[in-house]
Amino acid sequence: MMQHAQPIGFQSDSALLERWFSDIATMTADVAGVSRPAYSAKETAVLDYLRNEARTLGLAASFDAGQNLVVSLPHDASAARFTLIGSHVDSVPQGGNYDGLAGVLAGLAVLVRARRGDLALARPTKLIALRGEESSWFGPCYIGSKALLGALTTEEAGAQHARDGRPLLAHMADIGVDVDRVATRTPLMPATAIEAYVELHIEQGPVLVERNIPVAVVSGIRGNLRHKRIVAFGEAGHSGAVPGAYRHDPVLAVSALLAELDAHWQRLLAREQDVAVTVGTIGTDPATSALSRIPDKIAFSLDIRSKDAKTLDEMRGWLGEAFARISEERGIRFEIDGEIYTPPALCDEDIVSRLSDAQIATGLKPYVMASGGGHDAAVFAGSGVPSGMLFVRNRNGSHNPAEAMDIDDLLEGIAVLCSFVQRKNRT
Amino acid sequence: MMQHAQPIGFQSDSALLERWFSDIATMTADVAGVSRPAYSAKETAVLDYLRNEARTLGLAASFDAGQNLVVSLPHDASAARFTLIGSHVDSVPQGGNYDGLAGVLAGLAVLVRARRGDLALARPTKLIALRGEESSWFGPCYIGSKALLGALTTEEAGAQHARDGRPLLAHMADIGVDVDRVATRTPLMPATAIEAYVELHIEQGPVLVERNIPVAVVSGIRGNLRHKRIVAFGEAGHSGAVPGAYRHDPVLAVSALLAELDAHWQRLLAREQDVAVTVGTIGTDPATSALSRIPDKIAFSLDIRSKDAKTLDEMRGWLGEAFARISEERGIRFEIDGEIYTPPALCDEDIVSRLSDAQIATGLKPYVMASGGGHDAAVFAGSGVPSGMLFVRNRNGSHNPAEAMDIDDLLEGIAVLCSFVQRKNRT
Repeated sequence: MMQHAQPIGFQSDSALLERWFSDIATMTADVAGVSRPAYSAKETAVLDYLRNEARTLGLAASFDAGQNLVVSLPHDASAARFTLIGSHVDSVPQGGNYDGLAGVLAGLAVLVRARRGDLALARPTKLIALRGEESSWFGPCYIGSKALLGALTTEEAGAQHARDGRPLLAHMADIGVDVDRVATRTPLMPATAIEAYVELHIEQGPVLVERNIPVAVVSGIRGNLRHKRIVAFGEAGHSGAVPGAYRHDPVLAVSALLAELDAHWQRLLAREQDVAVTVGTIGTDPATSALSRIPDKIAFSLDIRSKDAKTLDEMRGWLGEAFARISEERGIRFEIDGEIYTPPALCDEDIVSRLSDAQIATGLKPYVMASGGGHDAAVFAGSGVPSGMLFVRNRNGSHNPAEAMDIDDLLEGIAVLCSFVQRKNRT
Repeated sequence: MMQHAQPIGFQSDSALLERWFSDIATMTADVAGVSRPAYSAKETAVLDYLRNEARTLGLAASFDAGQNLVVSLPHDASAARFTLIGSHVDSVPQGGNYDGLAGVLAGLAVLVRARRGDLALARPTKLIALRGEESSWFGPCYIGSKALLGALTTEEAGAQHARDGRPLLAHMADIGVDVDRVATRTPLMPATAIEAYVELHIEQGPVLVERNIPVAVVSGIRGNLRHKRIVAFGEAGHSGAVPGAYRHDPVLAVSALLAELDAHWQRLLAREQDVAVTVGTIGTDPATSALSRIPDKIAFSLDIRSKDAKTLDEMRGWLGEAFARISEERGIRFEIDGEIYTPPALCDEDIVSRLSDAQIATGLKPYVMASGGGHDAAVFAGSGVPSGMLFVRNRNGSHNPAEAMDIDDLLEGIAVLCSFVQRKNRT
């Protein structure tokens, strides 16, 4: 690439991206990794930085009523209908630098290419850098996109911040969000204005690394069925003095349940049903449990995901039966908290097909996969916006400082995005 | 019983016992139940109280080099050989008031009867109120009796306190134990001086309640094979993004292990082998685990008991194979701490027979059973002292605040002890 020939920007895409990632990581560094809390001054600082970069590079950039940053070519700023590229800038506490930010910078890079004249856009195209996607700060996830589309529930709006306990709406008001519209579920951007929503995101699992594929098209986003805390109650006793026949041991009861759940999961996988089962937290009470005491209780969480709502329904039914049977067999009692349910979201078929074409057009092997993690794209899809996603290969998972994405892989993803938004009569 | 005729003591045995239990419970009350930590000032306070009570009632009472309390009739204090009645005064954290203390107070009641002239002792008889029997505080159990008989290993002497991390010997030194003799495994009381060791203890299981029997003679004490902390290491990841085939989930691996261990236990019970399996503590790390994160590790304890050493050997072999197989099948790694092993201890046949005779002499039905819990008697037996035990009926198990022993049942046990130590030419 001959940099001196470009009208705008004196850095290669690769150097631009490296600098943006590095500057933003420095601005938001924590004792480990980065922390960019949802609806915080730190999140605003990141968006201010991006607005300044966009303007310096000749793009139009401004904040919407949700205080998200919207960027476009200057003459597209007032377009009534447009393609929207987006992702989020917030992170989990002590998270990695790429989750969310990679998609925002990819969108910015697409617009920089268009501004330079290296890319002719088929349709007006905007980038949205969203706030508040991560659930770590307030509990609900996808807050920025829900607020944008008038989909934030009253319960979610009142969710308390994990650290200071103040409600979400108060934090939103602090940084200038139009909270009256959010509270009345008035869309800040009409869903009908968005012809397509496309989000690039790092893959949060190991599939692309294992299969040696830099970029994948996402077919859908797994829904989930979750319980934060299920408690099994049994009967405490002395480890040596209570014969097996007299025991009501909640730990062995839960072990039996989880072993059966694991076996059931493997059966579903063998039938090619899409399911993932995770017990993220489990434990006896450290204050009362001891080496030589049969515990009286054990608590655990449950996170079951599938891209198929029917599979989640089946799992719910299986669990109900297993809880009842094991309770009866072992004389223990389960106390089950309220289920948290997020339905699966399917990507738009036409967009999946166009993204796959774009993948092939850039010289990549076509590869389509389901998303395990949830993303803002699910909210757009849920609001009737034709939506799609790209995954970029990433090592070490996400939500941790060890996230490792190669800029070269991101450039492949950007090439697919460019091909997707490109005016086709040029080819 | 005519109290005014008694030269010493103005309370019935029943009233004395109730007062002692109540005073000591008050002195050692915790937020729930009682806490009498091993080798603590609180344990010393209990022994000081008992020394004062014993002296007030006309008995000789003093601390030995292990800071255990030794009580006898004044003229038996310097006897070269004697029958020893004993148990411990420490408790588990937030435990019950009867575990250990019932046997100590029973022994004191026997000596009070002898001092009153209600009982003629066949042989010099002493009570020892031992410290540090419970494993909850330092890891090793029977510390007081092991130190007494020169049987505390160097590893045990260096065991760290569960809360402050300081070694056992330092805690012993704090309260005046002759730690040089303990460290060099010099007996503080010669085993040859003890003609017989007899311990009364509450039953820690439900058998006597279920069978409606107030007092049992113990045939032997189950040995145990224990691990305080086994850690299974797997690979952390996003709950939705890592497909089953790529997972190395330590929680599901440990669930599978425990479900198999439980099934194996049931097979052994069906073959009438004596075994009890307990996972007293288990848990993911609360600091790093989360609902939507595959945990990287889980830790658990293991306590396997049997009155048959061969069964314990078989279980060790089974565990070794299971750890290896599950590690390989699931790509996880087990980090297994040192095994704590206590061999099964058989009670002395002659003493079992004499205790059974005493049981019949007091009008009770003879009943002999194995002890599931370990007791100091195992250490005495292991040091060659002819040893025996009595169990007193108790509801709700032990090691918890709900322990419920009737004083009337304890009085039955005291009657058996009295018959055991009584000069037989009186009958």
